[in-house]
Amino acid sequence: MRRSLVDVVGEEHVLTDSRTAGYSVDWTGRYRGLTPAVVRPRDTAQVAAVLALCATAAMPVVPQGGNTGLVGGGVPRSGELVLSLERLDRLGPVDRDATQVTAEAGVTLQRLADAHPDLDFGVAIASRHSATVGGAIATNAGGLRVLRYGPMRAQIRGIETVLSDGTVLSHLSGLVKDNTGYDYPSLLAGSEGTLAVVTKARLRLVPRPRDPVVALLGLPGLADLHSLAVRAVREIPGLVSAEFFTSTGLDVLLRHTDLTPPLSVPTDAYLLLEVSDAGAMEALAELAGDLPAAVASGAAERARLWAYRERHPEAAGFLAPPLKLDVSVPAARWVELATRIGDVVAAVDTGARVITFGHVADGNVHVNIAPGAEADGRHQDAVFGFVADLGGSISAEHGIGALKAAWLPLSRTAAERALFARIRAAFDPAGILNPSVLPR
Amino acid sequence: MRRSLVDVVGEEHVLTDSRTAGYSVDWTGRYRGLTPAVVRPRDTAQVAAVLALCATAAMPVVPQGGNTGLVGGGVPRSGELVLSLERLDRLGPVDRDATQVTAEAGVTLQRLADAHPDLDFGVAIASRHSATVGGAIATNAGGLRVLRYGPMRAQIRGIETVLSDGTVLSHLSGLVKDNTGYDYPSLLAGSEGTLAVVTKARLRLVPRPRDPVVALLGLPGLADLHSLAVRAVREIPGLVSAEFFTSTGLDVLLRHTDLTPPLSVPTDAYLLLEVSDAGAMEALAELAGDLPAAVASGAAERARLWAYRERHPEAAGFLAPPLKLDVSVPAARWVELATRIGDVVAAVDTGARVITFGHVADGNVHVNIAPGAEADGRHQDAVFGFVADLGGSISAEHGIGALKAAWLPLSRTAAERALFARIRAAFDPAGILNPSVLPR
Ligand SMILES: Cc1cc2nc3c(=O)[nH]c(=O)nc-3n(C[C@H](O)[C@H](O)[C@H](O)COP(=O)(O)OP(=O)(O)OC[C@H]3O[C@@H](n4cnc5c(N)ncnc54)[C@H](O)[C@@H]3O)c2cc1C
Ligand SMILES: Cc1cc2nc3c(=O)[nH]c(=O)nc-3n(C[C@H](O)[C@H](O)[C@H](O)COP(=O)(O)OP(=O)(O)OC[C@H]3O[C@@H](n4cnc5c(N)ncnc54)[C@H](O)[C@@H]3O)c2cc1C
Repeated sequence: MRRSLVDVVGEEHVLTDSRTAGYSVDWTGRYRGLTPAVVRPRDTAQVAAVLALCATAAMPVVPQGGNTGLVGGGVPRSGELVLSLERLDRLGPVDRDATQVTAEAGVTLQRLADAHPDLDFGVAIASRHSATVGGAIATNAGGLRVLRYGPMRAQIRGIETVLSDGTVLSHLSGLVKDNTGYDYPSLLAGSEGTLAVVTKARLRLVPRPRDPVVALLGLPGLADLHSLAVRAVREIPGLVSAEFFTSTGLDVLLRHTDLTPPLSVPTDAYLLLEVSDAGAMEALAELAGDLPAAVASGAAERARLWAYRERHPEAAGFLAPPLKLDVSVPAARWVELATRIGDVVAAVDTGARVITFGHVADGNVHVNIAPGAEADGRHQDAVFGFVADLGGSISAEHGIGALKAAWLPLSRTAAERALFARIRAAFDPAGILNPSVLPR
Repeated sequence: MRRSLVDVVGEEHVLTDSRTAGYSVDWTGRYRGLTPAVVRPRDTAQVAAVLALCATAAMPVVPQGGNTGLVGGGVPRSGELVLSLERLDRLGPVDRDATQVTAEAGVTLQRLADAHPDLDFGVAIASRHSATVGGAIATNAGGLRVLRYGPMRAQIRGIETVLSDGTVLSHLSGLVKDNTGYDYPSLLAGSEGTLAVVTKARLRLVPRPRDPVVALLGLPGLADLHSLAVRAVREIPGLVSAEFFTSTGLDVLLRHTDLTPPLSVPTDAYLLLEVSDAGAMEALAELAGDLPAAVASGAAERARLWAYRERHPEAAGFLAPPLKLDVSVPAARWVELATRIGDVVAAVDTGARVITFGHVADGNVHVNIAPGAEADGRHQDAVFGFVADLGGSISAEHGIGALKAAWLPLSRTAAERALFARIRAAFDPAGILNPSVLPR
C-alpha cells in the first residue's frame, strides 16, 4: 500500500518515520496513538486517490487539519492512517461584491481574516493561526462571535468534499439561497471527519467594523454578570462578543504569564464586550454604570484587553495536564451552571482546580479542570451528568471526538444515535472515516 | 386501514369525502391529484401512530401544512394519503431572556411574529398568515429578510420529528450551541417532507425594531438597481430587506388591484429598502440622492409601500394560470439574469408575459410567467438552462417539489443525487414519505 500512496502524493509526502510524531498527539497532550503513515496530498484529486486506496484496503483514516482540536478527534487512536490536509492551502481571490472567498481545506482561519482590508471572517477562535477551514467546518467551530455571525456552519456558501470511496462532490456555487435537495454541507459542519473529507469551501466574509470598541467590566459575581450580558444583547445592536472569565483563571494567568491586573480593583467576575462601532459608546457607558471598567478603541489596546480572555485556554495547563470540557445550557440555567460547577467537580475530586470562561451570551461555558485525582472519567461523569440535568449539551462547540464518546447518550437518545449510524453508513459505507470518533 | 386510522385520530379527522378537495390542489391550481384520505392528527403521538400504520401498509404519505407551497410538493400526486398538520397548533410561552419559543408544526408564521410585543420572527413571507412552522422548515423558507436573519434553517434551536416508522426524535433543547453529533435539523430544513415529519420546533425570535423605515426608490434600470442594492448592503448596517420589482409587474397590479402609482414619476425598476431604525435615515437619504423616492416610517405607511412588493406573487395570476419559477445566481451574474430573462422566455413562447421580482441582495429572482403557449416544460427548459449557464440554482427558496424534479440534474451532479438517495433511505427505509417529490 505504501508504494501506491507514494505513487499518488510522492515519496516525501508519505511520512512513516519520526516526523509522524507531531501528527500523532493532540494539543492537550492527552490523546496520542500510532499511525502507519501520515499522507499529505496536495489537491482534491490526490485526496480522492488516497481515500480510494484506503477504502479498498479497509484502512481506517483520520483527517487532520491544524490539529488544534480539543477532543482527541484528529489524531490516530487505533492505528489509523493520518490524512493531513495542510498542503491544500490555496486561497482564491476575494469577491468584493458577493463578500465571499474560496479556500482550500488547509487554509487557516487567520488567513481568511486577513484576506481583504474591508472584510473579516465571521468565526474567530483563539487557535485561528493554526486551525484550518476543513477542521473548523468538521468541528463546526464557534468561538468569540457566534452571537453576531453564527458558527462555522453559517459561513458556508458552498463546499467540495470527497467521500470515502473517492467520489468528489463539488458544489462551490457561492449562492446565498439554494434549496435544491438536501443541504448536506450543513450536516458536514460538525461531523468531525466521520462523513467525508472537506477539500474546499466557498465562505462568506463579513464587513470589517470601522471603529470597534472593547470594554472589560468587573462584576461582583456571575449572576450579576449574566443579567448584564442579557441586557447588553438586548440593548446594544452592534454587539459582536460577550465573553466572560473569573478571578480564578485570571489569578493563574497573572502568576504564570506577563499579564498585569486589568482593572484598578480586583473583582470576582469579568465581562468582555466588543461592539462594532464607536456609536455604541454611550450605550456601553450606560450599561457599565459605576462598575470598574476598562475601555479600548485602538487596535493595540483592544488586543491588550482581549488577551485576558483569549489566554484563558492556557491557564489550567499551567497547573496540570488539563481536562478541557465544553458545555452549554439554556439561558435560564446558566447562572446555576456557572456558580455550582466548582462544587460539582470538588465532590469527585477535592484537589481539582476548576477554571471557567467562555461565551456567556451563547450559554456556553468552558470547564477547564486541572485534576487532583486520576482522570478516569469521574470528572466527566460529574460535569456531564450535572449539565444533562440542567437540560444542557455535553459539547457546545468542541465536538464529541474520543473525549466524550462514552457520554453521548446524555445528550442524544438511542433513536437519535441509531439515525446517526444510518446517516454515517449513507456517506461512508466502507466505514473507514475516523472510526473511533462518535460512537457507531 | 380506514378503521385503524379512525381509531387513532377519531372519525371526524379522517376525511374521505368532498372535504378532501381543498387539500388536493395547490395554491397555483396547477397541481392536483386524488387522495384516499386526509388525516388530521392532534399531537405527536397521533402522528407517530398514523405513520406507523402507513409504513406497515406501504401507503405513501404527503405531509401538508398551510398548503401555500409553490412547487406542487404538498399535495397528493399519485394517490398519497395527506397527513395534515394543521391541528398541531399549540404555541408555547415566549422565553424572553433566551428570545425563543416552542411551536407545533401547524402554527402559522404570523402567530410567531405576534407572539411578543418586543420580539419578531426572523422569517417573513407574503404567505405568513397561512404558511406553517412545519411547511416553512420543510421548504427552508426564505423571504423578505434573509439578508439580515437568514432562512428558516437559521431560526431552528431544536426540533421534534417523526420518522416514517413512527419513531419520535425529540431535541427541543433551545441551545444556541450544541455540537453533539450530526445536525440533522439543518438537513430537515429544505427536505420537503421526504425525510421525516416535523411536529414541533424550538425557534429563535429576534428583537423587534423600534422605528423601522421603509424607502421605495425608482431607478432607470436593473443594472443601476443592483449597484445601489450592493451599496446599501455595504453602507447601511441596519438594513433588513432589499427587494425589487419592475414596471411590468407594477403595471399589471395597477390595472387589476386598487393600488395607485407609488411614485410621482413612473420608472422602470423599483428598489424597496427596509432599515431597522430611524438612525439610518441619513444614510438612506444619501443613497437615494435625487432619485424619485417615497419614505415611510409609520406602520400604516410602511405597509402601504410594502404592498407594492408583497402583492407581486399575485400579478401573473391576473393574466393566466401562472408558472412560478424561483431562481438565484451569484452576485456577479445577477444583472445578466434579470435583464435577459424576458428574451430567454420569449425565445420559446412569444406570447408569454414575464414578471420578475424578488430578493435582490440574495441574488434571488422570482420569474413568474403567464404563458402564451402550452406549459409543456419548454419554459422551464429555457429559464433553468439559462440559470445553470450563469452558475445559478433552479430553486432559490421554493424547493424542487414536483415542478422542478425533472431539472434537478442542472443544479446537482449524479454523485450528489446518489448521495441524496442514500440519505433518504437512511431516514425513510420504507420509502413512503412524499415519493413524487425530489427524484430518487
Ligand atoms: C487555544 C485554543 C482555543 C480554541 N478555541 C476554540 C473556540 O473558541 N471555539 C471552538 O469551537 N473551538 C476552539 N478550539 C478548538 C479547535 O481550534 C477547533 O475545533 C478547530 O476548528 C479545529 O481546527 P483544526 O484545523 O485544528 O482541526 P483538527 O484539530 O486537525 O481536527 C479536528 C476534527 O476535524 C476533523 N477534520 C480536520 N480537517 C478535516 C477535513 N479537511 N475534512 C474532514 N474532517 C476534518 C478531524 O478528523 C477532527 O475530528 C480551540 C483550540 C485551542 C487550542
Ligand atoms: C403569496 C405567496 C408568497 C410566498 N412567498 C414566499 C417567499 O417569499 N419565500 C419562500 O421561501 N416561500 C414563499 N412562498 C412559498 C410558501 O409559502 C412556503 O414554501 C411555505 O414555507 C410553505 O409552508 P406551508 O405550511 O404552506 O407548507 P405546504 O405548502 O403545506 O408544504 C410545503 C412542503 O413542505 C412539506 N411539509 C409541510 N408540512 C410539513 C411537516 N410538518 N413536516 C414535514 N414536511 C412538511 C410538504 O410535504 C411540502 O413538500 C410563498 C407562497 C405564496 C402563496
